[in-house]
Amino acid sequence: MILIINSGSSSLKYQLYTPDLTKVLCSGMIAKIGEPEGYAEHFVGRRGERRHCETANHHAAFGAMMEALLSPEYGVLQCPGAVTAIGHRVVHGGAIFFGSVVVDDCVLQALRECATFAPLHNPANIVGIEEAQRAFPGVPNVVVFDTAFHQTVPPKAHLYALPFELSVAHGIRRYGFHGTSCRYVSQAAAEILNRPIEALSMVVCHLGNGVTLDAIKGGKSVDTTIGFGTFSGVAMGTRAGDFDPAIIFHLVNKLGMSLEQVEEICYRKSGLLGLSGLSNDMREICTAAEKGNTRCQLALEVFTYQIRKTIGAYAAAMGGLDALVFTAGIGENSAEIRTRICADMGFLGIEIDSRLNAAARGGDPNISASGARVATLVVPTDEERMIAIDTLALTRPGVAAMQEESPRLAAE
Amino acid sequence: MILIINSGSSSLKYQLYTPDLTKVLCSGMIAKIGEPEGYAEHFVGRRGERRHCETANHHAAFGAMMEALLSPEYGVLQCPGAVTAIGHRVVHGGAIFFGSVVVDDCVLQALRECATFAPLHNPANIVGIEEAQRAFPGVPNVVVFDTAFHQTVPPKAHLYALPFELSVAHGIRRYGFHGTSCRYVSQAAAEILNRPIEALSMVVCHLGNGVTLDAIKGGKSVDTTIGFGTFSGVAMGTRAGDFDPAIIFHLVNKLGMSLEQVEEICYRKSGLLGLSGLSNDMREICTAAEKGNTRCQLALEVFTYQIRKTIGAYAAAMGGLDALVFTAGIGENSAEIRTRICADMGFLGIEIDSRLNAAARGGDPNISASGARVATLVVPTDEERMIAIDTLALTRPGVAAMQEESPRLAAE
Ligand SMILES: Nc1ncnc2c1ncn2[C@@H]1O[C@H](COP(=O)(O)OP(=O)(O)O)[C@@H](O)[C@H]1O
Ligand SMILES: Nc1ncnc2c1ncn2[C@@H]1O[C@H](COP(=O)(O)OP(=O)(O)O)[C@@H](O)[C@H]1O
Repeated sequence: MILIINSGSSSLKYQLYTPDLTKVLCSGMIAKIGEPEGYAEHFVGRRGERRHCETANHHAAFGAMMEALLSPEYGVLQCPGAVTAIGHRVVHGGAIFFGSVVVDDCVLQALRECATFAPLHNPANIVGIEEAQRAFPGVPNVVVFDTAFHQTVPPKAHLYALPFELSVAHGIRRYGFHGTSCRYVSQAAAEILNRPIEALSMVVCHLGNGVTLDAIKGGKSVDTTIGFGTFSGVAMGTRAGDFDPAIIFHLVNKLGMSLEQVEEICYRKSGLLGLSGLSNDMREICTAAEKGNTRCQLALEVFTYQIRKTIGAYAAAMGGLDALVFTAGIGENSAEIRTRICADMGFLGIEIDSRLNAAARGGDPNISASGARVATLVVPTDEERMIAIDTLALTRPGVAAMQEESPRLAAE
Repeated sequence: MILIINSGSSSLKYQLYTPDLTKVLCSGMIAKIGEPEGYAEHFVGRRGERRHCETANHHAAFGAMMEALLSPEYGVLQCPGAVTAIGHRVVHGGAIFFGSVVVDDCVLQALRECATFAPLHNPANIVGIEEAQRAFPGVPNVVVFDTAFHQTVPPKAHLYALPFELSVAHGIRRYGFHGTSCRYVSQAAAEILNRPIEALSMVVCHLGNGVTLDAIKGGKSVDTTIGFGTFSGVAMGTRAGDFDPAIIFHLVNKLGMSLEQVEEICYRKSGLLGLSGLSNDMREICTAAEKGNTRCQLALEVFTYQIRKTIGAYAAAMGGLDALVFTAGIGENSAEIRTRICADMGFLGIEIDSRLNAAARGGDPNISASGARVATLVVPTDEERMIAIDTLALTRPGVAAMQEESPRLAAE
């Protein structure tokens, strides 16, 4: 069986797959690590339960997961030995990792070095790996990065126009995010269209609490919205997206804010929340906007306008567009946001069918109007499955042997 | 006669027009104000001279200009009384000024308030106005703003996704820049195309030492690249253009830089200079790139890639594109940069004729390939003439009377 672990900054999520990946045996989460209101969820099929579960740190959270997996009552694992491979989500692979890899000491060391770029996430990811090595001795661990898919973004798109030496010496560049989701969804989209991904220029709109737009040409990420930190790009739930950096000088020098306060604003008080003053949740914003809340209407306008501009920009980056793909919480569920984004984009060949758009969830993933030059799709993302696919691919006997010689072999 | 004054941060430029604006009688500049290497240039027609001229401050520079204008030897002004109106370039009109206005006390006070946004420029502009009031008593002064044309940019495009209350309370928004140039050039483009500007969606690429791309729909600026400070948007000669603001936190918190150092980098050490390591001058960069300098090739790639993306973004913002207009030092003179920007943009309808492009300077301003859906033009900018046009329009007897009642009446 294949275990997928996402040991994040404040929660630990897991899924257990059958060895052929046809079925998720169980899934769960240890939430609010380090807080008194911590809780655990564990699902087997549709049956699940949530219970109070206070964990002091990520080590304790890992223990709580093991307990749930091995529980005689609701666990699905007889013994640790039934797990044949473990896949871990890791946020930041710096400019080192171009694909998923099997963990060894040298990989672990590199992950620690990449932690400067993701100080909240990588250390938690690493605890998950070390605990897994202890709990499942001899079982291979694979790491799958949020950044790796974007390592194909060329210099003209990943470099900022800052002093070149500074950028190179300190790894200042666009790293991107949500790469695992974008990779999964772009492959699924090519399958749905029954066209080789090598022949397609597409824009994936991963619209969840976090937002990434990704320009994917021939299956390779060639530009993406999130840059160096994770609040950049398009406005998100609470994150600001891009803004003129000169504003930081103004907030500090003229308004007397500390850099810590500014950073807190950029990550937690901006985006949909900052514009609307009401919520970071798109459902609430759509509802309130409909009832006439002007600040929520403004938040919708800014959000969709930034996305429309990015689609146009990426079409220019790729010299045209074949497919536009919506995914993640907002992208999969909100027909209204898709309508707003696609309105008046006929000059690019984007036109959607309002009936198909309204029925997209569970219906036809292709919501294009008939005759539209660009195929517009709604494709549910599944990052865990993508991690499981990489984990399986990299730990198949033949591949594993190759790995021993070249530990940084990419999954593809 | 109409006198145009651009009292900038380190130089004072002037032009004297005939009352009907058909002719520039003389033009000049007092450069490097406050520096021992200060100098003055004065041109009458094609005849000109440059001489050493050390000036302590902008007051002294104004005096040096008056001397040149009134010089019995090479001056063109008999007496101050021959000047009937004076137009001033002012950088920042905040969110107050939507157009050009005749100066009165209330306008001067507002200019002082806008100086928080342009601390290097507005105070110098104000000195120019006050000196003009003293030197030409009773003559009306008109101010023409770099920002005013962009006041039509709607909230979805001028607001950042920062906390709304913060933005509103402290005027944090996109103000734009090079508005006088974009206005002049867009009107000239419509005339060249012999089409009403109201019916056109265009992108103006003002590519000089400073760079602005402007989306102009129906003659109104609806989005523009420069935001709050003047180093934002697209990479420029020494200015960084947009980058992920999180980089500032990294430079200060991880690398120990001061905010002052970071600001210095953003304004003076970035852009073409920072990428190339060689120069901020596009001619030098093109020459070195041609000879195989890879850093200069990179600078060209980043510069043109950012512009291509912005053109695509603005096409999406306007729902399509009718005209693409190049202006300013690089835009008017570099066939190579225009070629790189327009390559592979057929999906938008942009296609240029390489022969027309090469001959654009002095030749046909329309360099589109025959049958191209988008008209691509090369149009020389003339900010001084635009200022002179506004100055004349606002000081015509009838208009001047109206102005007395409503001092913030826009030029149009
Ligand atoms: N039907 C819906 N309409 C609009 N927004 C929705 C809908 N369903 C979910 N969302 C939004 O999706 C977002 C969460 O997306 P998700 O992908 O789950 O986030 P995360 O990035 O945390 O994985 C929230 O803003 C939520 O409001
Ligand atoms: N023939 C040319 N080829 C390429 N670049 C040119 C050419 N002529 C002028 N330039 C560039 O134009 C820029 C200056 O533009 P200009 O509009 O004069 O600047 P400013 O913004 O200071 O008014 C410089 O980078 C210069 O190298």
